[in-house]
Amino acid sequence: MQSPNGRTADHPINPIFLERFSPRAFTGEAMSEADLLTIFEAARWAPSSYNSQPWRFLYARRDTPMWDTFLNLLVPGNQGWAKDTAVLVILISKISMSVPGKEIPIQSYSHSLDAGAAWGYLALQAQMSGWAAHAMVGFDLDRTAIELDIPADYRVEIALAIGRQVPPAELPDDKKAKEKPNGRTPIATLIREGKFAK
Amino acid sequence: MQSPNGRTADHPINPIFLERFSPRAFTGEAMSEADLLTIFEAARWAPSSYNSQPWRFLYARRDTPMWDTFLNLLVPGNQGWAKDTAVLVILISKISMSVPGKEIPIQSYSHSLDAGAAWGYLALQAQMSGWAAHAMVGFDLDRTAIELDIPADYRVEIALAIGRQVPPAELPDDKKAKEKPNGRTPIATLIREGKFAK
Repeated sequence: MQSPNGRTADHPINPIFLERFSPRAFTGEAMSEADLLTIFEAARWAPSSYNSQPWRFLYARRDTPMWDTFLNLLVPGNQGWAKDTAVLVILISKISMSVPGKEIPIQSYSHSLDAGAAWGYLALQAQMSGWAAHAMVGFDLDRTAIELDIPADYRVEIALAIGRQVPPAELPDDKKAKEKPNGRTPIATLIREGKFAK
Repeated sequence: MQSPNGRTADHPINPIFLERFSPRAFTGEAMSEADLLTIFEAARWAPSSYNSQPWRFLYARRDTPMWDTFLNLLVPGNQGWAKDTAVLVILISKISMSVPGKEIPIQSYSHSLDAGAAWGYLALQAQMSGWAAHAMVGFDLDRTAIELDIPADYRVEIALAIGRQVPPAELPDDKKAKEKPNGRTPIATLIREGKFAK
C-alpha cells in the first residue's frame, strides 16, 4: 500500500503510520492551547511499566519568554528549521519508580522505552490534528538539565519541535527534495522467528 | 471524551489511544502470518534517531518449537496469562549506530527510546487489527540474552505477548474486574511550561 507522500508499506497498516513523518519546513504558525493539550493527551495514554508514566514534557510556545531559552539548547542546524515551529519540547523520563509491594522506589528498567512510546503517540496525534512533530538528539543535554532545573532523577531524552508543515507543493524544488519522507530497511532485517541471527 | 472501555480523556484525541490497553485474558487463538506482519509493519515506520531503526523483534508463535523457550523466559505470574496469547516477542535495541560523516559507529543516545516508539506503534496496530499486545519487564533478562543468542551490542528491552482478548462480557465477574483498563495521572503532572518544577 502506498501513501500520497511516496512511502510504501509492504503489509497493510493504518495509513497514519506512513503519513507521520518529521519535516523541516514549517510555516511559523502558532498553536492553540487546545491543540497542544490534545497532542499531549495522546502521549498520556501510552503504556508503561507498572503504569508508572515516567514521561514529563517541558515546553515553550513561540512568542513567549521561554522560547529563546529552549531554541538555544538546539544545535545550530536544528535551530535553523525549528525556529519556524510552534512549540519546542524537552522530553525527560523519571528514572526511579514505585512498584506494588516495595517500600522504597526502584530504578525503572524501561523509563526511556516508556517515554519513547509516549513520544510515538504524541507524534501520531500531532499528525492527526494537522500538525507535525520532529524529534532531535541534536541539542545540548547538559545545558538542558542545568537551564531547565531538571533533577538528577530524570534522564533528558529528546527535544521535539511541533509545528505546521509547509505543504510540499509550495516549496521550491531544492527544498521539496529535502522534505521527501525517508524509507525503512526491509522488514526481514527487523524481525526474526526464534533466536537472533545476523 | 469517554471510551466504551470506561476510560475518559480530558482532551479530545483519536479514540484508538484510549481503546489500546494491556489485557490479561486471552483466548488462545493463533495468529495468521498476515496479521503478524501487519503488526510488525507498523512498528517499522516508527521514527528514530538518524532513521537508525534500532529495534529488532525476536518472536515465537504458539504451537511451534520455540514457543516454550520464549514462554519460560517470563516470570511465572506472566506465564499464567501469556500462555493464552498467540505470539511472544522479545524486543531488543541496537546500541551502536552509523551516522553521516563518522567513519566508525557511535553509541546511540536514544536506542531504547526509539524502540519504545516502535513498541507503541506495534501496540496500536495490534489493537486496530483486532488483537491486543501486552508488554512486560517481568522476564529473565540475562537468560533471554543467552538463550536467544543476543549479541552484546543489543539491549534486551521488553517482552511482549500478542493475542486475542476475551471480550470482557464473557468473563466471570472476578476476572472482569481485573480486566478494567487503568487510568492515568492528571496531565498537569506530566507537562510544564518552562522549567521543571516539582
